[in-house]
Amino acid sequence: MHLESGDLADYVRGAAMLGAGGGGDPYIGHLMLQQLFAQGRKLSIIPPASLRDDDLVASVACMGAPTVMTEKLPSIDALALALQELEAQVEREVSAIIPLEIGGINATVPLVLASHLGLPVVDADGMGRAFPEIQMVTFGVGGCPISPIVVTNERNDIVIVQSDDNKQGEDLARSVVTRMGGMAQIALYPMSGSEARRTCVPETLGLALAIGRSIGGAGAAGLDPFASLFVELEKSQPGRKCGILFDGKVVDVCRETRGGFNVGAVSLRGLNGDGGAFEVHYQNENTVAYRDGKVVAVVPDIIAILDRESAEPVTAERVKYGQRVKVLALTVPGVMTTPEALATFGPSAFSIDVAYRPFYEYRCRPSPA
Amino acid sequence: MHLESGDLADYVRGAAMLGAGGGGDPYIGHLMLQQLFAQGRKLSIIPPASLRDDDLVASVACMGAPTVMTEKLPSIDALALALQELEAQVEREVSAIIPLEIGGINATVPLVLASHLGLPVVDADGMGRAFPEIQMVTFGVGGCPISPIVVTNERNDIVIVQSDDNKQGEDLARSVVTRMGGMAQIALYPMSGSEARRTCVPETLGLALAIGRSIGGAGAAGLDPFASLFVELEKSQPGRKCGILFDGKVVDVCRETRGGFNVGAVSLRGLNGDGGAFEVHYQNENTVAYRDGKVVAVVPDIIAILDRESAEPVTAERVKYGQRVKVLALTVPGVMTTPEALATFGPSAFSIDVAYRPFYEYRCRPSPA
Repeated sequence: MHLESGDLADYVRGAAMLGAGGGGDPYIGHLMLQQLFAQGRKLSIIPPASLRDDDLVASVACMGAPTVMTEKLPSIDALALALQELEAQVEREVSAIIPLEIGGINATVPLVLASHLGLPVVDADGMGRAFPEIQMVTFGVGGCPISPIVVTNERNDIVIVQSDDNKQGEDLARSVVTRMGGMAQIALYPMSGSEARRTCVPETLGLALAIGRSIGGAGAAGLDPFASLFVELEKSQPGRKCGILFDGKVVDVCRETRGGFNVGAVSLRGLNGDGGAFEVHYQNENTVAYRDGKVVAVVPDIIAILDRESAEPVTAERVKYGQRVKVLALTVPGVMTTPEALATFGPSAFSIDVAYRPFYEYRCRPSPA
Repeated sequence: MHLESGDLADYVRGAAMLGAGGGGDPYIGHLMLQQLFAQGRKLSIIPPASLRDDDLVASVACMGAPTVMTEKLPSIDALALALQELEAQVEREVSAIIPLEIGGINATVPLVLASHLGLPVVDADGMGRAFPEIQMVTFGVGGCPISPIVVTNERNDIVIVQSDDNKQGEDLARSVVTRMGGMAQIALYPMSGSEARRTCVPETLGLALAIGRSIGGAGAAGLDPFASLFVELEKSQPGRKCGILFDGKVVDVCRETRGGFNVGAVSLRGLNGDGGAFEVHYQNENTVAYRDGKVVAVVPDIIAILDRESAEPVTAERVKYGQRVKVLALTVPGVMTTPEALATFGPSAFSIDVAYRPFYEYRCRPSPA
């Protein structure tokens, strides 16, 4: 896979859609990558299969509330410091960086650091989307320890979290990130090449680019970007299903920054006031969608709010009253719906009291009597 | 200095008084040391002067809200883990443990761990009393870095905080401790022997024992424990002044656990309702005392609430309505009232808008017209 300056807008657009409403502002990622290419920096993206068994790979990311990330930007120096301290803790140098998530800003942050350090990036990630918590990762589901988690800020403070329990690692790191102002840089999940290959969601950088290109290209050609997106997904992701859950306008947004997260709900109605009540709840990322109080899609399925004309993704921290949008659902790869995976990032992990089913199974509603 | 089983009650009583209302429940420390001696463990207490220049010393303590410590007890294993990880971080073994504070439970915790590991304890500490925050320490005032701070809990989670700013180290460690349930074990301030000698408050373990003995001995002999205490302080601490600020009863207690601290205020009145309004504010430790709204003593002076008959110290988390008490003030050694020291643990460090003066200078009130 190649990524060049002209691909940036498409790549971050695709990452924003896979971000499921969260993952941080993709525009910031766009600017960071743009600057990178303008400086003539090189970026090497390698397939997971090219990792050797005894390579050391690790993830870097920004952790915090996307609302905060719009004002408190990632620091390349702090990212480099985090990775350097992780290497010191495990007493080895990493040979490649693997993204933690392919959603939003964390789809670009690893690329920026990798380019800065001259390291390759693996075309894969640990979520196949974005999730709000750092233990909600296929690496962990597959048995890889999250620790040590290194947290850094722009003041060169370093906090190293070591826990046998990945969720406890998240909780401890989150408390530190919150104290650091709601956004910090992290390095985590040091893994062998074979562990990364075994547990990652592969080829998601390429998927982000393809999604973004299908939407952007259609818009430029005056075609329906949703149709273009569906065709692209059917072609490149044959095992996955995609559908429009709702078409309407935003009538209310409830949003707060709580416990280090951006949490809330978006209420929608049909353009003519019809179509019933539709609601999307989020914790950084959209987690569940309800129509008339009944679940119609739930994590780990990707629930994305897109502009109803351009199909540009609208993130949860930017959604606002009056926007005309379509709500899209996309199922996830099989590795993300095993019982172990669902225990980590399925409905119960978000205290949503429903068993996971792919979104299209919820749509079989009895016809009116 | 020697400390034997029969000294324990006196030692923890003295530590409770020096704890200035905070420092955690001394009874728990009593039990821990009692068990230690019952097991036949040895305890070596050495004078600061015996430290060699290139010795490595460090502090261990419990960090959190004393209210929580009454239910969540210190773990020797977690203390040992913290010290062990600190040694790993600085790549050296410590040769002695120096208490962070001589107040409350942290006057005993270092002794318990030292005995457990067969290490000596230095007869000195970094506060000459107890303070609520871990940067409020003469080691730091003297230029010693607080970092790395190792935080551990009973689940073997380890968090390492590294900051060039000691107060930032406190803030980050506090957020972790709060997430760990409001109490955790810490190891910090790795110092050379010469640094420890230069910055410590010396001979405070001996002082705690002497204070506790003077109070306890007087009670057993049917003498006035306050008179006995004053005589002891005049003898062993000739440069310091001690006085009774108020004699009365507790009429109100305001207490909450906030931001990882036990904060609030104790209101007192004279036994016959006379004597005006007296109030003691605390953040874990008593920080300031007001009579009729005017400051009569403030940190770093030690403000202690003692039972008015037995002179037993009453800690801030145990003080309650109706108790008959005397409020005592004790000045601190000169090393604790330098401009640098006052900036770190004087009134301004607690957002108390008054310039520090020793308590007896506040008492020169104009006589009634």
